[in-house]
Amino acid sequence: MADLKSAFLNVYSQLKSELLQDPSFEFTDDSRQWVERMLDYNVPGGKLNRGLSVIDSYRLLKDGKELTQDEIFLTSALGWCIEWLQAYFLVLDDIMDSSHTRRGQPCWFRLPNVGMIAVNDGVILRNHITRILKNHFRGKPYYVDLLDLFNEVEFQTASGQMIDLITTLEGEKDLSKYSLQQHRRIVQYKTAYYSFYLPVACALVMAGENLDNHINVKNILVDMGIYFQVQDDYLDCFGNPETIGKKAHIICFNESVTQALCKCQIGTDIEDFKCSWLVVKALEICNEEQKKVLYENYGKPDPANVAKVKALYNELNLKGVFEDYESKSYERLVTSIEAHPSKPVQAVLKSFLGKIYKRQK
Amino acid sequence: MADLKSAFLNVYSQLKSELLQDPSFEFTDDSRQWVERMLDYNVPGGKLNRGLSVIDSYRLLKDGKELTQDEIFLTSALGWCIEWLQAYFLVLDDIMDSSHTRRGQPCWFRLPNVGMIAVNDGVILRNHITRILKNHFRGKPYYVDLLDLFNEVEFQTASGQMIDLITTLEGEKDLSKYSLQQHRRIVQYKTAYYSFYLPVACALVMAGENLDNHINVKNILVDMGIYFQVQDDYLDCFGNPETIGKKAHIICFNESVTQALCKCQIGTDIEDFKCSWLVVKALEICNEEQKKVLYENYGKPDPANVAKVKALYNELNLKGVFEDYESKSYERLVTSIEAHPSKPVQAVLKSFLGKIYKRQK
Repeated sequence: MADLKSAFLNVYSQLKSELLQDPSFEFTDDSRQWVERMLDYNVPGGKLNRGLSVIDSYRLLKDGKELTQDEIFLTSALGWCIEWLQAYFLVLDDIMDSSHTRRGQPCWFRLPNVGMIAVNDGVILRNHITRILKNHFRGKPYYVDLLDLFNEVEFQTASGQMIDLITTLEGEKDLSKYSLQQHRRIVQYKTAYYSFYLPVACALVMAGENLDNHINVKNILVDMGIYFQVQDDYLDCFGNPETIGKKAHIICFNESVTQALCKCQIGTDIEDFKCSWLVVKALEICNEEQKKVLYENYGKPDPANVAKVKALYNELNLKGVFEDYESKSYERLVTSIEAHPSKPVQAVLKSFLGKIYKRQK
Repeated sequence: MADLKSAFLNVYSQLKSELLQDPSFEFTDDSRQWVERMLDYNVPGGKLNRGLSVIDSYRLLKDGKELTQDEIFLTSALGWCIEWLQAYFLVLDDIMDSSHTRRGQPCWFRLPNVGMIAVNDGVILRNHITRILKNHFRGKPYYVDLLDLFNEVEFQTASGQMIDLITTLEGEKDLSKYSLQQHRRIVQYKTAYYSFYLPVACALVMAGENLDNHINVKNILVDMGIYFQVQDDYLDCFGNPETIGKKAHIICFNESVTQALCKCQIGTDIEDFKCSWLVVKALEICNEEQKKVLYENYGKPDPANVAKVKALYNELNLKGVFEDYESKSYERLVTSIEAHPSKPVQAVLKSFLGKIYKRQK
């Protein structure tokens, strides 16, 4: 596994050095340095799960046979395209959300001398995907399918981001806009397609499959992506701060000052008026009186308001409701997966499910 | 001509209505309304020269034969893709430049309730191009060439924007970074490819041509784009305010207050420390004493500083230098065009040149 990751990181270095010598553009020294720093800061610093899973999935589709050097390189390149896509979304999302930190460091646009240039850097990141695809897949019979796939998934992600943004418009905090259906829609488009469907779809395309024959696989993966986000929403409120490295980091901008805070609080979905699964579920099952408590306290920064929302979540036993949701989702997913005619495809889907079922972080 | 433009605008309505019913995304009423308003605000309000020139160029390539309904629709759709691309760049550029107005109205991101959501709207605009191409060109033999073309030109434009941004970084105003070569590089990448090469390239691809055989056409159009931008830089300082509608509008945010100002000043390149052709030319031909004047006065908002720069421009006879540049560029372009083996291609290039030679606005 460590080997796989270091091989994957080597491919990053190669792709980066190709991009820094792209013949379609006459770099100046300054601009070449800028791009290199921007890439190193934003692309490889995450968990790399999405990228690595392209290689895993492709291996499983090939019945676990050892991959050739060429196959390892190409699946890694596609994996990196997904990591680049993620970097592009995150750089721009952080600007739109006025975030402060990301992956334990200041957001790119917060750095001195970057600022709004980060908008164009986001665009550059997005364009690197098409450069990588052109450099390494232009002659393949499935080249156009890869372009269509990345284009469609990007469109869906941006559309999901749009409904998320306009639903939580400043000055229009209105809980009546939140529902399970709205939550599902945001999560499906904003997260599930690119995080769950895209890696598997890349592997399928490279294995010579026509994606039109795999609508079922798409539906299962989107379902899994929704389940994953519901877990995220749950852990934001009920997770154990000791195990969730990521979230603790996000809050701890100034570590020395807020360490105490990190111990007792994980996320800030309640304060931030997020369309979280917890709040939409609460709205669904609460009575009129409890609804009033939600309307009066959700989305306010004061810890007293937050505490009232949390007390209500406990009163409604959202922990139990979530555990019920989790086991039902798992059963439904297993049933769908086992109904799939191809054993290798089943293996891919089960591998994804295994990684997220009952995760604590 | 009015007919052509109204037919072109009808295609906009059709494309928009397809995008608002895109089956790849489940719109809510709110999000559909948002996109419609965003499109109407940002896409069709320009001069539409880039878009219309796809139709013109294609007709000339077809030896002036009347186009079929289908050809008119498809060339218009490609023309609109360029207008969408332009809208995408402008929405994001205005954010990065903290601009106030665009095309005589407030910039999109300045509208109440829009703000940084405009970043995602830019992304949506960009994604509409791939949706339009997929909807109308997916089955054509040249579909993949269109995708590659738009991808490459977008990459070049974003790269040009990057060097422009990092050259004029706040707090690092340094005239020694400015040179004719740097000016040429910014203009070539940021403007010339998408404004001049892309419309003709779209027409060539639709006419069944392989763009690899038309490097020469690309070079001529890029050259023309550079000449066009030099004119723009010249008119920013020396243009007649009465004839340049656009620039006057850009300054006149609050029309009643600044009308007097608009009469006497066109652009603000000097105040804004822009890498304009005038300043790089001045730097090239000035003596040490004059260079000192430039270094001391360029990029400052005070009208006294601006006046000193303008006086120096006159002292250096930049008007004459420009006229000389203009006639030499024209001759060089005509010679290159007439050396091209195809008469229809010559006609396309001459039509572009005719539209910009000695323009006053």
